[in-house]
Amino acid sequence: MVNSLAPGHPDPGSTDRTRLRRIPDKAVTERVTAYEILDAGLVAHLAVLQEGQPFVLPVGYARRGDEVLIHGSSGSRLFRTLAEGVPTCLTVTLLDGMVLARSAFESSMHYRSVMALGSARRLTGDEELDALTVLTEHLLPGRSRDARPPSKKELAATLTLALPLDEISVKVSAGFPDDDPADLIDPIYSKIWAGVVPMFTQFGTPIPDQFTPEDSPVPDYISTWRCE
Amino acid sequence: MVNSLAPGHPDPGSTDRTRLRRIPDKAVTERVTAYEILDAGLVAHLAVLQEGQPFVLPVGYARRGDEVLIHGSSGSRLFRTLAEGVPTCLTVTLLDGMVLARSAFESSMHYRSVMALGSARRLTGDEELDALTVLTEHLLPGRSRDARPPSKKELAATLTLALPLDEISVKVSAGFPDDDPADLIDPIYSKIWAGVVPMFTQFGTPIPDQFTPEDSPVPDYISTWRCE
Repeated sequence: MVNSLAPGHPDPGSTDRTRLRRIPDKAVTERVTAYEILDAGLVAHLAVLQEGQPFVLPVGYARRGDEVLIHGSSGSRLFRTLAEGVPTCLTVTLLDGMVLARSAFESSMHYRSVMALGSARRLTGDEELDALTVLTEHLLPGRSRDARPPSKKELAATLTLALPLDEISVKVSAGFPDDDPADLIDPIYSKIWAGVVPMFTQFGTPIPDQFTPEDSPVPDYISTWRCE
Repeated sequence: MVNSLAPGHPDPGSTDRTRLRRIPDKAVTERVTAYEILDAGLVAHLAVLQEGQPFVLPVGYARRGDEVLIHGSSGSRLFRTLAEGVPTCLTVTLLDGMVLARSAFESSMHYRSVMALGSARRLTGDEELDALTVLTEHLLPGRSRDARPPSKKELAATLTLALPLDEISVKVSAGFPDDDPADLIDPIYSKIWAGVVPMFTQFGTPIPDQFTPEDSPVPDYISTWRCE
């Protein structure tokens, strides 16, 4: 389950800190894969170090070019610490299925994960406004044309940060169980069912709030929402 | 999206580090809620600090009593660092839906999240064997009666750790949009659809590998698997 990267790959985002130490067959370095994973996810987990204690925060995010955008409350001590440019790590993990091997040891999960190391910078002015639109459009595709844009007061309550995708690692676990050859001919374990149970995330039926007019239709764009 | 805890709650797991700084209405402290979230999740994100750089690793996990169990490769430098008892943070986040408010600012996500701070200890002997069974049973309920238990060699390749749930915080975001009253009477924004789009994770059709005998049925227990 630990993120790692294949050694010696030409990816410019691979450094000594993110290069492989093990399981090279599970590592892929293509930046295009990293961006596909980031574009498919909704929630990232972000490290913030404070007085020697690391915290891991869940945050909504969006990718814009070679950066990941995040936003939080300007009243959040952890978010203010991030805005100061301390070293951080942002990880996005998509769980795709469970792998039932013949042994407990080889049983595992299908997942795709991206880890980005670096320091965030605070966005202001038009760059912040654009970032907030990108965030809304990634998290709620289509909604930015309906929703009211942020007011000055709301912007003052928001810290919008960008983390460069310079130093990244990608790991994809896929395929069937990699069982011990002895288990495949064992009189007991060779008989059991082994394979993969896929997992997927779906959206359910939209539920309007009490203030939505009865004649206000569910927006078209919601029907296009999909999870990978 | 930032984890926080309501102030002054009597939960013994709440300390200065995990107590609220903001959004008290989104904070719940009940330990029972924390354990429900932990029992419903499969993947945690774990912080490891190495030479001043925090890393966030995705890991499968299971709760056993007042501890969270994790395991990884004894060849993993980050896992070995964790086993030394450095301060860590483990966060589990379940995404339950998207909240479409009339403003971008009030739009958000439904989620449930637990953050645990502390230091992991390494498990050995029978305690490790029991922990590995608990892990298999949490991640693949029913499978431990079929799967081959770990061999000595496999155990040597595994680091099994327990993180105490002493210092925890819980955050649950639920309910309908909390729109600005002005938006509710605005001639444009009062007309748009607003509400919640639930999200849920499902298991798909199990896919056997090429070594599974044709007369080997899909195990009964898989049909009982559910995601919250």
